[in-house]
Amino acid sequence: MPDPRFFKKSRTYTLREIAEKTGCTLHPEKSADLEIRDVAPLRTATADDISFLDNLKYRSDFLETKAGACFVSQEMAANAPGHLTSLVTRSPYKAYALTARLFYPEANPEPEISQQAYIHPSARLGKGCVIEQGATLAEGAEIGDGCWIEPGAVLGRNIKIGSHCRIGANATLSHCLLGDHVRVYPGVRIGQDGFGFAIDPAGHVKVPQLGRVVIGDHVEIGANTTIDRGAGPDTVIGSGTWIDNLVQIGHNVVIGRGCIIVAQVGISGSTQIGDYVAIGGQAGLTGHLKIGQGARIAAQSGVMNDIPAGQEHMGSPSFPKNQYLRQIAALNRLIKKKKDD
Amino acid sequence: MPDPRFFKKSRTYTLREIAEKTGCTLHPEKSADLEIRDVAPLRTATADDISFLDNLKYRSDFLETKAGACFVSQEMAANAPGHLTSLVTRSPYKAYALTARLFYPEANPEPEISQQAYIHPSARLGKGCVIEQGATLAEGAEIGDGCWIEPGAVLGRNIKIGSHCRIGANATLSHCLLGDHVRVYPGVRIGQDGFGFAIDPAGHVKVPQLGRVVIGDHVEIGANTTIDRGAGPDTVIGSGTWIDNLVQIGHNVVIGRGCIIVAQVGISGSTQIGDYVAIGGQAGLTGHLKIGQGARIAAQSGVMNDIPAGQEHMGSPSFPKNQYLRQIAALNRLIKKKKDD
Amino acid sequence: MPDPRFFKKSRTYTLREIAEKTGCTLHPEKSADLEIRDVAPLRTATADDISFLDNLKYRSDFLETKAGACFVSQEMAANAPGHLTSLVTRSPYKAYALTARLFYPEANPEPEISQQAYIHPSARLGKGCVIEQGATLAEGAEIGDGCWIEPGAVLGRNIKIGSHCRIGANATLSHCLLGDHVRVYPGVRIGQDGFGFAIDPAGHVKVPQLGRVVIGDHVEIGANTTIDRGAGPDTVIGSGTWIDNLVQIGHNVVIGRGCIIVAQVGISGSTQIGDYVAIGGQAGLTGHLKIGQGARIAAQSGVMNDIPAGQEHMGSPSFPKNQYLRQIAALNRLIKKKKDD
Repeated sequence: MPDPRFFKKSRTYTLREIAEKTGCTLHPEKSADLEIRDVAPLRTATADDISFLDNLKYRSDFLETKAGACFVSQEMAANAPGHLTSLVTRSPYKAYALTARLFYPEANPEPEISQQAYIHPSARLGKGCVIEQGATLAEGAEIGDGCWIEPGAVLGRNIKIGSHCRIGANATLSHCLLGDHVRVYPGVRIGQDGFGFAIDPAGHVKVPQLGRVVIGDHVEIGANTTIDRGAGPDTVIGSGTWIDNLVQIGHNVVIGRGCIIVAQVGISGSTQIGDYVAIGGQAGLTGHLKIGQGARIAAQSGVMNDIPAGQEHMGSPSFPKNQYLRQIAALNRLIKKKKDD
Repeated sequence: MPDPRFFKKSRTYTLREIAEKTGCTLHPEKSADLEIRDVAPLRTATADDISFLDNLKYRSDFLETKAGACFVSQEMAANAPGHLTSLVTRSPYKAYALTARLFYPEANPEPEISQQAYIHPSARLGKGCVIEQGATLAEGAEIGDGCWIEPGAVLGRNIKIGSHCRIGANATLSHCLLGDHVRVYPGVRIGQDGFGFAIDPAGHVKVPQLGRVVIGDHVEIGANTTIDRGAGPDTVIGSGTWIDNLVQIGHNVVIGRGCIIVAQVGISGSTQIGDYVAIGGQAGLTGHLKIGQGARIAAQSGVMNDIPAGQEHMGSPSFPKNQYLRQIAALNRLIKKKKDD
Repeated sequence: MPDPRFFKKSRTYTLREIAEKTGCTLHPEKSADLEIRDVAPLRTATADDISFLDNLKYRSDFLETKAGACFVSQEMAANAPGHLTSLVTRSPYKAYALTARLFYPEANPEPEISQQAYIHPSARLGKGCVIEQGATLAEGAEIGDGCWIEPGAVLGRNIKIGSHCRIGANATLSHCLLGDHVRVYPGVRIGQDGFGFAIDPAGHVKVPQLGRVVIGDHVEIGANTTIDRGAGPDTVIGSGTWIDNLVQIGHNVVIGRGCIIVAQVGISGSTQIGDYVAIGGQAGLTGHLKIGQGARIAAQSGVMNDIPAGQEHMGSPSFPKNQYLRQIAALNRLIKKKKDD
């Protein structure tokens, strides 16, 4: 079970309650009154726990689990061990997520403004905020209701963030506007100058970076990620987009809604990314590209050209998936042939 | 126009003033008295604004712009819309940079030493410095005139930085000497131990890292970049070199003058890089290499061998550009042939 | 010699003392009473200094060195300049490391708890700790004897760290347990939520991250590296493992003992890595993999499949070393052939 030093459980739930809240079907139905005490991974779950099977790599864990109940697909439910109650759903992972949030709801600490925070007299705070020690709210900074500003976070001059945002420890924000329910993890850097200069034999000439970073609602920005402000236009992150750790987003980049950007991705200046695009870890995109809605870019890809909506790209330089897979296959045929010669 | 909450404009300028300060030729000349109120991107500029065309990807924005004036090359000036005054130059981007700096000059806040900064009695400060709350100047640290130390920055024992440097929020510096006009962005880590150890079955043996980081003048170091100190020799960054975000520079690396190092590049220990080298994003260089003056390394390259002066390398492992492009072409011929079979 | 502003030397040592402490053989033996004043690189060493030759790239530096003594292999000792005393060993680098630690022993500052640190009344501290200004020890946090917590470090609620750990400036720790002698460099992020969500058209559903980060003894974690806590299981780093700067370690990752993980590596969620695995810079591993004990993964590799114990992989996508090298050779034959056609 989750370590109680770090996680506080709400209460127990019956399978009936859980099935209702997640829209799952119970097999067998007679287990509806079974009381579930906790969520747990398949391998460590006990008879009072509920677990989930989503990735079929963990099929054998499912077959051997001691869990009392498990979210599974219709197909896998047929293989469930006899003692297990299946909660059948098309989205076992989503159902687990909703359930884990029942048991372990996120909660801010009690509202409190630390005496050791540095809050400029002109800064404006919403109701019910937590401002921890060592945090800075500079001149004119404005934060909405229910925000949580962790220790050492620096919110620069005139920045504005919406309600229910959480700004992680030692993160720094300047020249930016954030929506509601934005979560910025520790060490994130938002709004500093982009990498803009005119190359000159006498010394590179800095180009003033006169734009902002504008971030929508329900955005997550992972630890130590860097988002430069625009050079003239703004850098924009659409609502519902999730960004992982150590990602670099250059000036003037525009990212749509609901995108997924995995760790260590780099997006160069002025590239535009449509809604619901997924970008795998360590992929890089050069500047001034247009990536269509719903495109998928594999991990470590090097994207140097526009990608149409819905297309999947792989490789460095990247190609459409089929072409890339044929390249790899051709290479391996070639070395097999050489070996056979 | 730039958001006045974040950017303060100086005044208006006539085209005559701008042409003089940037060395451009006016077409038509009679517009010299036109008063320009602001800089702006081509797409959002109005009749009072000046813009620029540098990357020909934005040619159609130029043809349709409502800007009153625009920096352009001789060739493109011929296609300028009738209402537009062209400021003809070989370096439109540099001319724009200089002009944007006229309208929006960089300026430090008024000199002030925060009562909530931690300044050791033995630390020495130049004239006119800004030291913000939560910043640390440790024992023996020394900073020159006109420096700006942002909140939470930690300047370690006996470090020394020149005049007119700006150290970003929550950056940390130790075992280093910086020149004048160096800009360190938020979250940068300079001077920590390099990754030095002797592998041993009984436990890796740490090698004391006894060098420093020595940085020249007019260097920029992007957010969350890490620069390890030397192991015995120093790690050196030459004057006028610009480093982007999330770059890793290993111990004993020596980088020349005027280099450009794009985001997420990694340079392994003891590699030496000549003057005016450009390294694209996410490229990696193994250790103990010599990269000649003016070499160019493409994004995502994996460099495992020395590169002669002026040569351009691409690919992982990297090859001279021509060889790399022939590799990619050969691969694509190969899969085309297979398809035709 | 190392800059005395940053490094404090203990005393001089005779070659006899050094040979005894490192298990080396002296050539010629008669030099045993020679007094060595310092360690130095081959190129800058003088007659009072001891140096080392490990990487044969620096052979010419060895032949021309002015050093009084040098750790070398048996083979190279035969080529030593006449004035030089060789300390013959199979591990010149390890012998140098041990010697450099004699001259420059690591030492914490004098124990002191800064009045400007934020220490919750319920936090527990071992004996002889250094807690610097601006550091946070939250409710229930516990640290062992002889720990050094640098300025601005944030140790979250109920975290526990062993004895003789050093937590770098502005690092942040939550939801984690650390062993003894762990060194966390500046800007490291440990224990924040992993990148866990169920994709849903109506908005990604966050999955509560209910695990911890559990770190063994004698682990080093480089600057600005990020280690997410487990989603249910823990994220685990084995004893004696060294992690470089800017590395990303996803939730539920399990890393064995004595591993070496070079800068900018990314390891995706739930991947398991055996003991003594070495991973080169910028390599990426997808999730849910098993990497066997002693496997070696080259820089920039893209690992998408399990790797058996002891195997060496290269390339993106990665292949066993031999297969990868044949791929590169085949490509270059192909373009040569085309050229010859």
